[in-house]
Amino acid sequence: MTSNKNIVVIGGGTGTFTILTGLKKYPYNLTAIVSMADDGGSTGRLRDELGVLPPGDVRQCLVALSEASLILRKLFNYRFDKGELKGHSFGNIFISAFEKITGDFNKALEEIGNVLNIKGRVVPVTLDRVWLRAKLENGTELKGENEINNSWLLSKFGIKKLFLRPPAKANPKAIEAILRADIIIIGPGNLYCSIIPNFLVKGIPEALLRSKALKIYNCNLMTKHGHTDGFTVTTFVSVVESYLKKNFFNYVIFNTKRPLLALLKKYSSEGEWVKSNKDLLKEKRFIGANLISSKVYHQNPADKIKRAFIRHDPDKLAKTIVSLVSK
Amino acid sequence: MTSNKNIVVIGGGTGTFTILTGLKKYPYNLTAIVSMADDGGSTGRLRDELGVLPPGDVRQCLVALSEASLILRKLFNYRFDKGELKGHSFGNIFISAFEKITGDFNKALEEIGNVLNIKGRVVPVTLDRVWLRAKLENGTELKGENEINNSWLLSKFGIKKLFLRPPAKANPKAIEAILRADIIIIGPGNLYCSIIPNFLVKGIPEALLRSKALKIYNCNLMTKHGHTDGFTVTTFVSVVESYLKKNFFNYVIFNTKRPLLALLKKYSSEGEWVKSNKDLLKEKRFIGANLISSKVYHQNPADKIKRAFIRHDPDKLAKTIVSLVSK
Repeated sequence: MTSNKNIVVIGGGTGTFTILTGLKKYPYNLTAIVSMADDGGSTGRLRDELGVLPPGDVRQCLVALSEASLILRKLFNYRFDKGELKGHSFGNIFISAFEKITGDFNKALEEIGNVLNIKGRVVPVTLDRVWLRAKLENGTELKGENEINNSWLLSKFGIKKLFLRPPAKANPKAIEAILRADIIIIGPGNLYCSIIPNFLVKGIPEALLRSKALKIYNCNLMTKHGHTDGFTVTTFVSVVESYLKKNFFNYVIFNTKRPLLALLKKYSSEGEWVKSNKDLLKEKRFIGANLISSKVYHQNPADKIKRAFIRHDPDKLAKTIVSLVSK
Repeated sequence: MTSNKNIVVIGGGTGTFTILTGLKKYPYNLTAIVSMADDGGSTGRLRDELGVLPPGDVRQCLVALSEASLILRKLFNYRFDKGELKGHSFGNIFISAFEKITGDFNKALEEIGNVLNIKGRVVPVTLDRVWLRAKLENGTELKGENEINNSWLLSKFGIKKLFLRPPAKANPKAIEAILRADIIIIGPGNLYCSIIPNFLVKGIPEALLRSKALKIYNCNLMTKHGHTDGFTVTTFVSVVESYLKKNFFNYVIFNTKRPLLALLKKYSSEGEWVKSNKDLLKEKRFIGANLISSKVYHQNPADKIKRAFIRHDPDKLAKTIVSLVSK
């Protein structure tokens, strides 16, 4: 078993939670670099009212890497369902209060990492307070990750430019992690709202291009209506690589197994299965496998943000990655 | 040094925080039994909206007994000062979320005790959801600890009866702690809102009267206008003992040192110095000492509850207690 390699996972949201959950069972040094553009739901309320950095994506990574008791991990993901706290995730409040006390988000994450006994590190991609913007080909400008996430106009008109306001510079800890990485893994995750915002931070694409690590892209299982309609595995890769460089990834891992029809039907208003093309497998860098979780996920009614309920199986995904890394 | 003795401290609020802070430096097994009638401020909002047990007094005891990092203790006492969370103590939210997840307040406190690395135990006097009521001699009935705490009518008309609605039965862990105690310490603390509510719980006075422990009462430093106007040390003791029995306490510790005039002036709208009578010292059970903290306390503007700012010095108080216990 290969061990002590430095793996950096870049993303944010449920996709990153899944991959960290799978990889933490292996003896790697894990670092999660997390997008900081979230401004919806509980996170958005805390940003607006307390002026804190967005805690939501960071929270999911902390819980994924936690080796604390089940009850403490449950606490962190607990969502209040009544009163003025309704919709808030306890973990988000925890992170925000810690940021308020320390006045230092990196420091707060270190302390919370101790409380949650995490295996690895969670590193915000930037410590600047940023908002995501999208300029569409028809001139429309969408303001904020939440607005972009809920918009159906991206597919309709096409994206001219995604950018952060104000412009952000990278967290030095993120740069350092990228440059020390043996393996860099990008995705799965919401393409325009979780993955790409990381590349809009000054210093991150530069560091990624300098890195000599093995680079792996995990393609999403499903498209997202209004964002990635009609995307195939190669469309996903080429969009991500357009922010880096062509053939940036040594490997592209994609799913070959069709989700259950009943689930696809239930999910049809959200998106469609990203079908795999058998020809892809002829290209050495494309790695197809059955990556789908058989677990059925449910939306928490207290959660205002829609979460994917067709998801990667953390163990299958990790196993596929490990097989490439150990080659 | 006497050691491994079981000390039970009964109260709630700032007074109990102070005494625990002092005593935890000594090698005793500490248990704090905490009143559960609080319904004001952040605690009251959480009770109303989430239906949880009151976290505020429990929180103060947990922080007092914590040996976790300073930053974690600060976090627990952190009060949000903006937005919809304004006025909430982070620790209160933490305890309430934990109660929601475990559905068991005792269990939640155990887990939080681990997170905060507490030395000792915090035991709610009851696990029933109760509200404090006061029937005054003129027929007025005050409903809720918060209403009673803010009322000036108690001194004016006199209290006919304090009681809990609905009637509450003791937490078995509280009874057990009382019966196993070598030393029982009551006070200091808000007489009608923090101390006496413990004796209104069925099973608690009975256990106290059965106990063979050494019993110590710590008299308050200050009266509270509208509640204990004109009270002397002996009035305090006799009111407390009226819920138990005459000469219940082996020792009554009281302060002999006048607070700074400037502080007394500042505090004059809240209450007055409980003067000591030199004759008291002739009675063997009355122990007078300089117990006043030289630290100046300030009201947190985000905190809706008025806290005492002339306080016991935790070390002086603990030292006096230890000298009696070691006799």
